[in-house]
Amino acid sequence: MGASQQEQGPLRVALLGCGVVGSEVARLLTQQSADLASRVGAPLELVGIAVRDASAPRPLAESVDRSLLTEDAEGLVARADIVIEVMGGIEPARALLLRAIEAGAAVVTANKALLAEDGPTLYKAADTAGVDIYFEAAVAGAIPIVRPVRESLAGDSVRRILGIVNGTTNYVLDQMASTGMSFDDAVRQAQDLGYAEADPTADVEGFDAAAKAAILASLAFHTRVSLEDVAREGITRITADDVAWAAQTGHVIKLLAIAESVTDDDGSHGVSVRVHPALVPLAHPLAGVRGAFNAVFVEADAAGELMFYGRGAGGAPTASAVLGDVVSAARHRVLGGKGPEESTYAALPILPASTAVTRYQVRLAVDDRPGVLAQVAQVLASKGVSIEAVRQPSEAAAPGAEDTHGADDGATGVAHLVITTHAAAEAALAATVDAIAVLEPVREITSVLRVEGA
Amino acid sequence: MGASQQEQGPLRVALLGCGVVGSEVARLLTQQSADLASRVGAPLELVGIAVRDASAPRPLAESVDRSLLTEDAEGLVARADIVIEVMGGIEPARALLLRAIEAGAAVVTANKALLAEDGPTLYKAADTAGVDIYFEAAVAGAIPIVRPVRESLAGDSVRRILGIVNGTTNYVLDQMASTGMSFDDAVRQAQDLGYAEADPTADVEGFDAAAKAAILASLAFHTRVSLEDVAREGITRITADDVAWAAQTGHVIKLLAIAESVTDDDGSHGVSVRVHPALVPLAHPLAGVRGAFNAVFVEADAAGELMFYGRGAGGAPTASAVLGDVVSAARHRVLGGKGPEESTYAALPILPASTAVTRYQVRLAVDDRPGVLAQVAQVLASKGVSIEAVRQPSEAAAPGAEDTHGADDGATGVAHLVITTHAAAEAALAATVDAIAVLEPVREITSVLRVEGA
Repeated sequence: MGASQQEQGPLRVALLGCGVVGSEVARLLTQQSADLASRVGAPLELVGIAVRDASAPRPLAESVDRSLLTEDAEGLVARADIVIEVMGGIEPARALLLRAIEAGAAVVTANKALLAEDGPTLYKAADTAGVDIYFEAAVAGAIPIVRPVRESLAGDSVRRILGIVNGTTNYVLDQMASTGMSFDDAVRQAQDLGYAEADPTADVEGFDAAAKAAILASLAFHTRVSLEDVAREGITRITADDVAWAAQTGHVIKLLAIAESVTDDDGSHGVSVRVHPALVPLAHPLAGVRGAFNAVFVEADAAGELMFYGRGAGGAPTASAVLGDVVSAARHRVLGGKGPEESTYAALPILPASTAVTRYQVRLAVDDRPGVLAQVAQVLASKGVSIEAVRQPSEAAAPGAEDTHGADDGATGVAHLVITTHAAAEAALAATVDAIAVLEPVREITSVLRVEGA
Repeated sequence: MGASQQEQGPLRVALLGCGVVGSEVARLLTQQSADLASRVGAPLELVGIAVRDASAPRPLAESVDRSLLTEDAEGLVARADIVIEVMGGIEPARALLLRAIEAGAAVVTANKALLAEDGPTLYKAADTAGVDIYFEAAVAGAIPIVRPVRESLAGDSVRRILGIVNGTTNYVLDQMASTGMSFDDAVRQAQDLGYAEADPTADVEGFDAAAKAAILASLAFHTRVSLEDVAREGITRITADDVAWAAQTGHVIKLLAIAESVTDDDGSHGVSVRVHPALVPLAHPLAGVRGAFNAVFVEADAAGELMFYGRGAGGAPTASAVLGDVVSAARHRVLGGKGPEESTYAALPILPASTAVTRYQVRLAVDDRPGVLAQVAQVLASKGVSIEAVRQPSEAAAPGAEDTHGADDGATGVAHLVITTHAAAEAALAATVDAIAVLEPVREITSVLRVEGA
């Protein structure tokens, strides 16, 4: 262990927050202290745990000395070499982290909301102070994705990231797919199991995923992306029918966080970052990500396709990621050096999500009579949107339905069309959908979903 | 970029080897030089490419100056800040790397054979000289696995690693599974496609996977594991029948590199490292790893289950991993510090593979008459091996076969039994199989395969 074998005093670790994640961090820090000391080259001493109410009952592992609990977060920060922030929210987390950084402490945070809103302030402060800031736990919980993107892929060019980075929505969509239940029922089940909050908005509306998308996009493309740069659409409009039709066409619906390098019509290069539900082909590695698991699929020029899979939330998994960062920061205290700084040299423009070119699946309810498919196809052609496939599923095909039987028997039942397009720009697709919607035999545009990962 | 924004002279990079990987490394170093300089904080200057015969024709990207080719590897090493070794083999790679380290250069190597045979010599030399040694590309090509295990999981305890770390054998087994072809035909196809060498021994006999298993086990368990510590069995005995029976019982056969923390009967704690074909349940994330892809599945105490998936070989993917390491080493040259050193504090004993407790699937050909299953079950019970399931597949079940019809009609056709056990020690299973083999109605033990990942 070289330099690390020299006698080295303990490194003082402060923990801000003692909820689901914090209590696990405290447990691991104390239960694994011998291993951690060997790996770091110095003991890690937990010197305090800042909480709002030190007298409140809380489940702490026996290995954790309860006298470490304190309500004086500022005082605690002032006497630490490494500050771990797992309290969440913007303030006082931001102020405490800035104070820690200014005092020369390394900081480790799991706070995706803070990083997506105001990461650059923290990165700049850490840069100025010459200290480490690590945040592996802020994206996809236990899954090592921040470090691989920042370091392992530092010699490559990332083209695109497709991530299932919100376990709640993946659980909900997976339950809908495997049982046929409704969105509302699946959310209630997720709440009963503790996978969803009483107010599930942050998850189901895609805010949580958007924060992670902003962080990942910044790292992957060496540019600044903040929460408001992310186009966002949640899963609240996904119906049991959507899920069933997806299965029938060989797909599964996932809420994806997408960050990709794009070139718009004017030839200018930029980044598109968006969160929305999408159809993922069953053969794609992301399609097999079940339950509350997360996975991040990365396409890079040289590396090709990579995927990182694991638990995206929960006390112990998130604590694992936090502790990995703590060891990195601590090793730097012992051996010298520091981790990579924020890299924003590329300074790429954020292009609107409408720049992104994807495949679409459009479902229509139409009058069940001949000629409708031809009319719809004509609209697509006139808008320059190329059709990959049109399905007129047999369950819905009433006798005499177009292109199935071909005879005009005057039936006016309802038929369903499922159109999958080749890659098209969002604007072209939107114009196409508008034009189809006003065709006389079209009763309803039932759904329009992007197809990703093909 | 803080310190990195100061004017910094170029870092001199030497490349040893210019084959499939080396030529891609040279291409990426030169084509991406502006990006790399921004990410590192200093330009990376490729100062030479050592090859055996500089006049031999070789496909080099246009961006690479052919005058960089040199046959004087030693001279090249002497004038480099960072030495990349992608020549393979033990010598002269080892001597050149040691010379580079002694001269104070950081080294990056993709040489799994060298690391598995004599890694500690290199690690110790790097430690003494205070320089970085990185080797992400030595395990699973482009997949970031070395860095996550060394750093991201440094605050956790790894329990087990199951890896598909050889693309050739995964391609062969996948072809057998998807087309029903024989092992020999699948190997020939892999050779035709360039996935397998003319002499496929290193792959199909598991030597390549064993080297990677040794490296991963060393990192995950903070102990020294070398190639000869790895119990190894290749896939040459896997038949089309084995693959078909696996599918029928809900499995797929994969060549797995397994490293696990085990406690033997005497209560002593150690590590078991082995490479062998195994049945993997179809629902396991590793089962979906197709073609020549690699994946490493990690089970850790706090993180739970993680999987890392991607291309395990090939010029560009391997070069991506090499370049990531080069950037890390170069950042340390610019910003100070160094990467983690070899961590062997745990000094765990290597327990024999026979200590490992796994489930097994045993296939038998038996006389098709009543009482045979009972006899076999009796042997398992007497050896303390618990049965999870016995299948007597219908295709093989001749009329009158035991437990299907129950009548003794004196038939002496052949029936097949597929027995899946609960977890059992290898020694107990071996004794059981020996005892079953000598039962009078048992014609043949068709196969004995471990079941992993349940």
